This record gives sequence, C-alpha cells and structure tokens, in this order.
Amino acid sequence: MSAEAEAAIGTGQKSVSEPLHLNPEVRVDVVRRLKSSRGHLDGIVRMLEDPGVYCVDVLNQVKAVQGALARVNEAVLRSHIRDHVITASERGDADQIVEELMTALRYRD
Amino acid sequence: MSAEAEAAIGTGQKSVSEPLHLNPEVRVDVVRRLKSSRGHLDGIVRMLEDPGVYCVDVLNQVKAVQGALARVNEAVLRSHIRDHVITASERGDADQIVEELMTALRYRD
Amino acid sequence: MSAEAEAAIGTGQKSVSEPLHLNPEVRVDVVRRLKSSRGHLDGIVRMLEDPGVYCVDVLNQVKAVQGALARVNEAVLRSHIRDHVITASERGDADQIVEELMTALRYRD
Amino acid sequence: MSAEAEAAIGTGQKSVSEPLHLNPEVRVDVVRRLKSSRGHLDGIVRMLEDPGVYCVDVLNQVKAVQGALARVNEAVLRSHIRDHVITASERGDADQIVEELMTALRYRD
Repeated sequence: MSAEAEAAIGTGQKSVSEPLHLNPEVRVDVVRRLKSSRGHLDGIVRMLEDPGVYCVDVLNQVKAVQGALARVNEAVLRSHIRDHVITASERGDADQIVEELMTALRYRD
Repeated sequence: MSAEAEAAIGTGQKSVSEPLHLNPEVRVDVVRRLKSSRGHLDGIVRMLEDPGVYCVDVLNQVKAVQGALARVNEAVLRSHIRDHVITASERGDADQIVEELMTALRYRD
Repeated sequence: MSAEAEAAIGTGQKSVSEPLHLNPEVRVDVVRRLKSSRGHLDGIVRMLEDPGVYCVDVLNQVKAVQGALARVNEAVLRSHIRDHVITASERGDADQIVEELMTALRYRD
Repeated sequence: MSAEAEAAIGTGQKSVSEPLHLNPEVRVDVVRRLKSSRGHLDGIVRMLEDPGVYCVDVLNQVKAVQGALARVNEAVLRSHIRDHVITASERGDADQIVEELMTALRYRD
C-alpha cells in the first residue's frame, strides 16, 4: 500500500471495530473510470501542444472530464450510503458518519 | 497536430479571418496543472488497489481533482473573455462567441 | 394541511409504519430562512423596477439568494441523514431511502 | 427607486460615460420569473406548516426553486454578454467588465 493511500485511509474509520471498505465491485468500476479520465486528460495535454488550440475547445474537454469524475463520485457515494450510512445507527458510529458525509457533500460536483 | 486537436479545433473558429488561440502563457500553465491532476488521478488509482480503502477518502480525493480542474477552467475562461469575448463586436463574430460561451458555461462546476 | 403539502408528502413514506418527519426545530429554522429569501427576492423585483438596473448587480443578488437556499438544503439534508438515513437499516426502508436521497443529491446547489 | 436598488446599482458602472442597463425585455421576463419563484417559496413555507412534512419533499421543492433561479441568471448573463461584454473593448471598460464577470461566474450553480 502506498504512503498516500495509508495517509488517506488513516483519516477514516479508526474507532469502529469492523473497518468500512468500499464495495469491491464498485472499486473495480471506479478504477476503470479513473483510468479513462486519466487518458482523457492526456488527450487534452496533447491538444494543448498545438499553439493554435482554441480556448472554448479546452473548456469543453475539461468539462467532459469533470462530468466523468462527478459520475465516479456518484457511484462511490451511492455505495457508501447503501453499505455504511444506513447502518450507522446499528453500528454506533453515527456522529462520525454524518459529519464526514456532510463534509464530502459540501462542494460536490 | 493530433487528430483529436484537429477535431476539437474544427468545432471552433472557421468564419473569422484571424483564428483565435489560447494565450501561450495560459496554455503552458494549463498543461502544468493538467499533468498535476493526472498524477493525482494516478494516486487515487493506487489508493484503490488497497481492498481496505474507505469510500469517503475516495470521495474527498476525487473532489480535490475536480477543484483543480475547476481552477483550470477558470484560468482558460478568464483568458478567453479577456482576449476574445470583449473584442467580438469589433471582430464581427459576436453571435458565435456568445452561443459557444453560454454552452461552455452551462454546466460549469 | 394544504393540498400542496399533501401531494408532496404523498410521494414520501407510505410503506413504513412510523412516518418520517422533518425535525421540528429545523422546520422552524427553515421557515425563517425561506421567508428571508422571499424578502430578498422582493428586493430584487423592486431593484428591477428601475430601468437603469445593471445586469451584474442582478446576477450577484440572485446568486446571494441561491446561496441562502443552498444553506437551507444543507440544514434539511443534515437533519434527514441524522434522523432517518442512518436508521434506515433498522427501520427496513433502506432501498427507498437510498434512492430518494441519491435523487435529491443529484443536482444539488 | 429603493435604497437597496440604489446601493446595488451604486456598485456598477460609474466610470463609463454611457451607463449599461439590463435589456428591457429581459428585465420584464426576469421580474415575471422572480415573482413565480417567490410564489413557489410561499408554497414551501405553507408546506412546512404541517408538522408531518417529510425532509426529502422539502429538499426537492427547494431544488426546484434553485433551478428556476439558475435559469434567471442564465438569461441575465446571456443578455449581459451580448449587450455589454462583447463591446467592452470598443467602449474602453474591459478590465472592469472582465473582473466583475469572473466574480459573478465564480459560484454560479
């Protein structure tokens, strides 16, 4: 596991006996989508090698990547709510779950 | 010039004698930022290799990339307005400039 | 109860024995805020009676109301998650709660 | 003219010889739409008088008003760009026009 992943996970669930994980199928799907967005960014970088590139074409291409990332976050969010949020009361970590969800939703999109 | 860039530029300025280009300094800055976002996406993909990754950590990392891309678009937009939109009446391509700007702004994040 | 409220509630919780209500304190707070936004809209309408009104002043005033409504929705959302979403698994209406929450979040802001 | 309108307009165009006004037809259309949004807010306030009101119904109604206000701002923005932004270079107030437009767009929904 990378240091980055460790650091990111370190901010998550410590106090709960059973750690909360992203659903494996969603995880695979998200990796596939993120790699596609990375390829799209590569394409925009190549497009910008042309000194004749037009501003609005850049805006629209970046917007397309933003849309793809919004759909990634929607998939992760749905999985999180279904697997972890609706069971928080049973599990006993409700305060933490509510606060971190509100923070994650604040500047969504 | 790549086929992708040609295709993208092909949707832009055809009827104007003097083609409109993204400001060279902004172009260099945008490439640097997009490469940084690409590296950030790589980091999220590595983070997702860990089956113990937590949903909310993914949400927050993707949100950070979305914020970076929003700042890229803000830079391109400012450059476009300053270099091309405020001069559209003099240049004579006002209708096209207004329509494509409104489309680009429609789902801006 | 108004026909509108009945219609709106009609789309909500039918299958659950114990109906879900917005927390009374949040409800009072939301009414106060919505009345304030209504007054703000009245002010913008009066501002628009002046034929010399400037576009950007209208944009900024409407944006202020949008911000106030976003804060209303954040308060209602937090209350809903805390009172109803985190208990959905115990209560047995998880599927409905997840779907309607995802729909409500889709075009948030 | 109300003090509020005066204050709002006071932040606008002072240094330009010919003051910039919102297009009269757009102004009439915007007033009509804002009064409709005000009526919608009144409906939500009445809906909230019912102690049995459901959170998600409030979220969805407020979202509908936010959408209507976003369409108001789109109409004002299009009018502003068409009437004032594309002529800024000719008129000589480009810096002011660019800055205030970027500010107005910053947190657009």
